[in-house]
Amino acid sequence: MKVIVPFRLEDPKARLSVYLKREEREELALCMLSDVLKAISKTDVERVTVLLSGSSDERVESLASNFGAELEFDKSELSKAINRRLEALTAVIVSDLPLLSKEVVKKFFELEGDVVIAPGRRGGTNMLLTRKEFRVSYHYGSYLKHVTMAKRMNYTVKIFDSFFAGCDVDTPDDLLEVMIHSPNSETCKCLRKLGFRLLLEKNPKIVRVRNYGEI
Amino acid sequence: MKVIVPFRLEDPKARLSVYLKREEREELALCMLSDVLKAISKTDVERVTVLLSGSSDERVESLASNFGAELEFDKSELSKAINRRLEALTAVIVSDLPLLSKEVVKKFFELEGDVVIAPGRRGGTNMLLTRKEFRVSYHYGSYLKHVTMAKRMNYTVKIFDSFFAGCDVDTPDDLLEVMIHSPNSETCKCLRKLGFRLLLEKNPKIVRVRNYGEI
Repeated sequence: MKVIVPFRLEDPKARLSVYLKREEREELALCMLSDVLKAISKTDVERVTVLLSGSSDERVESLASNFGAELEFDKSELSKAINRRLEALTAVIVSDLPLLSKEVVKKFFELEGDVVIAPGRRGGTNMLLTRKEFRVSYHYGSYLKHVTMAKRMNYTVKIFDSFFAGCDVDTPDDLLEVMIHSPNSETCKCLRKLGFRLLLEKNPKIVRVRNYGEI
Repeated sequence: MKVIVPFRLEDPKARLSVYLKREEREELALCMLSDVLKAISKTDVERVTVLLSGSSDERVESLASNFGAELEFDKSELSKAINRRLEALTAVIVSDLPLLSKEVVKKFFELEGDVVIAPGRRGGTNMLLTRKEFRVSYHYGSYLKHVTMAKRMNYTVKIFDSFFAGCDVDTPDDLLEVMIHSPNSETCKCLRKLGFRLLLEKNPKIVRVRNYGEI
């Protein structure tokens, strides 16, 4: 299995910008990439490629190198950049899944089917694996698009049912899931360093103890 | 395996009250209960009990009867009412999981462990199964509480990792998941009847085409 992990460092996670400065969001994005690469690197994969949209960055280079991943640059639109590299027996795993573990990734690789899809919230595709020729189309409800496209090609489509793979981080609510389910992740360590705390007195919520109010 | 499905029909799903009238929320809650009972009834269970908080209701009686479930009434606080009935080899499955299927429930029952927990979003416990003596404590981050309690008793704890079991319906965002992933459920049919439509032109969202504006 080859794995592509698309990554963008330019103004990442815009929906968190109310609570996190740009540099902080960059740091968080790098920690999430680290968690994802760590989970993947512990499985039996042939090659992992971090596909960086934009120009080179030392921090990304260092991370990729730490986990034995290759680094490629492509400024094209996301789906186009991926499709250029997508061949049979390739998985695409997005970089904002801090709840991912090697167990989850391993099970994902093991699920049979021409096309295997792990849905994310809000209609997204968090992980996709193809054992045939296939083209991806991210943005705007990619999950239903990918299922439809695969069925149209008479491929067997399997849905990988995972809470942990389903938790991509876009909104402040998603950060809560990180602090509940993945306390040892780099992402959670980063959140704590940035002043975030998990409060459990009533309904679980996170607060930022320095600089910012409750989120 | 015995299964307890707690259910409340008094002003249900308060967080949806901006978009749905009380009668509509009741109808939705009943459809979700129907979807959950349907999924459970197709597995090999010894007994299913709908645990109704509040007084009798013909619609609930009829639903329970349709799926061969028993109906019990208990006006006590949720955890207390469940704990009265909780014994070894019992599962508690909440009633607002319209993405549940018999495949998911079957896998859940098959996962080994003294205590097996399917997390919901925001720190909740959507399904819990105990093979030993155990007491539940819902509300206020029940997932972490249940994990801690089980570990303190030296029980083996297994986390059931499921996107579909993780989607409990509390907020308007959750309704989007129903329309994307469970179009044939009673819950989705109810939403369509109430005027909700899934829009996929841009990022997936649902709108209400009659009476109400976009949500």
